[in-house]
Amino acid sequence: MAKEEVVKVLGFWVSPFVRRVEWALKLKGVDYEYIEEDIFNKSSSLIQLNPVHKKVPVLIHNQKIIAESFIILEYIDETWKDKYTLLPQDPHERAQARFWAKFAEEKITEAAWNALCSFGDEKERAIKLTIEALQKIEEELKLKGKQFFGGERIGYVDIAVGWISYWLPVWEEVGSMKILESQQFPAISSWMHRFINHPLIKDNLPPRDKMVVYFKGRRDVLTSEPHGWLRI
Amino acid sequence: MAKEEVVKVLGFWVSPFVRRVEWALKLKGVDYEYIEEDIFNKSSSLIQLNPVHKKVPVLIHNQKIIAESFIILEYIDETWKDKYTLLPQDPHERAQARFWAKFAEEKITEAAWNALCSFGDEKERAIKLTIEALQKIEEELKLKGKQFFGGERIGYVDIAVGWISYWLPVWEEVGSMKILESQQFPAISSWMHRFINHPLIKDNLPPRDKMVVYFKGRRDVLTSEPHGWLRI
Repeated sequence: MAKEEVVKVLGFWVSPFVRRVEWALKLKGVDYEYIEEDIFNKSSSLIQLNPVHKKVPVLIHNQKIIAESFIILEYIDETWKDKYTLLPQDPHERAQARFWAKFAEEKITEAAWNALCSFGDEKERAIKLTIEALQKIEEELKLKGKQFFGGERIGYVDIAVGWISYWLPVWEEVGSMKILESQQFPAISSWMHRFINHPLIKDNLPPRDKMVVYFKGRRDVLTSEPHGWLRI
Repeated sequence: MAKEEVVKVLGFWVSPFVRRVEWALKLKGVDYEYIEEDIFNKSSSLIQLNPVHKKVPVLIHNQKIIAESFIILEYIDETWKDKYTLLPQDPHERAQARFWAKFAEEKITEAAWNALCSFGDEKERAIKLTIEALQKIEEELKLKGKQFFGGERIGYVDIAVGWISYWLPVWEEVGSMKILESQQFPAISSWMHRFINHPLIKDNLPPRDKMVVYFKGRRDVLTSEPHGWLRI
């Protein structure tokens, strides 16, 4: 990285969306300053930097400000393009990578979070939806037959779905639910093991015990509120 | 286009998502075969081509199959890259274009459709959300001060939000609601006029009278069903 470059990430320690940005920068070998944001008491800086959504992650690169984790990943890949590449080069392979990242975000993340923050029939339905969507990811991984979604190394899709390897088991524990354990997901299980044991990932995960406490707290708050759905 | 190339679009005549793909191909000057799909009685071909979502649009390029309109737009831009460009070249400008396209999809399309298919307080709330989100787009357009979101010509964001110029007024009529009229949207109004009068867009719009009949019918069906929310 050129010396004059300023790279900052506004984040929140337990957000899987923020970790995506950090993992991408680490894989690229880009130095950055991490700034912890209190998302429950948003700073004027966050509101100014991301006035539309007022959410983390926000990437600051010199004078440029980028929001939304997937959009930041594309920005990182296009900006530091000579380093480790996240998306494949072939347009069709790129389209497939974007497809699976979007699919997982819309079908797995939301359903799993809903499962965590609901009870009874609604919970059962959300667990079923999560498992059905995970099965699609399982099939895709089997079909590819590689170490990672990105081939023989971590790529865009691995970063996008990386939370499954570490956050989802915590949500299962906190929500007393069986998702990954309840089904046979051999390809996902092997991938999870490889993913969280990658040195750059392993060293960039929040402490599990703190996560359990945090998500128990969030779950209690959200399930006691009407329409308590809130992301993270 | 090389003679051996096969480009097909599986679509549905009134879908704004499908039109995005067609507009992009027209702007690029790529010849394609359009195949009308009955989305209420899905063909085995559609289910085979897009097994995950079973939705149009689907782009077939030689042996390659791509689903999801925004992902198809990126594919088109990357594949026929020497022709008319949709996304800007600069990574930060690309990120901004993706940001506004995603914002409009998540905040305007869904809220406006919800407003069309609901009553009473829920409708009022959805109209308010639509207007608030449109105001962000209005500000962005004013700030840019150009003919189009893409600058002096139609680009990725214009294609993404193009439905506002033609579908939204139909939804307003069918849903007896005032969205664009109820507020001052001078920048959006001028942009709408320019957008729908662009020769390639003008010639690629569904007939307005048929749209009114179609959306009246959909609205009646969806509002008579419990949880009747369905996209298009």
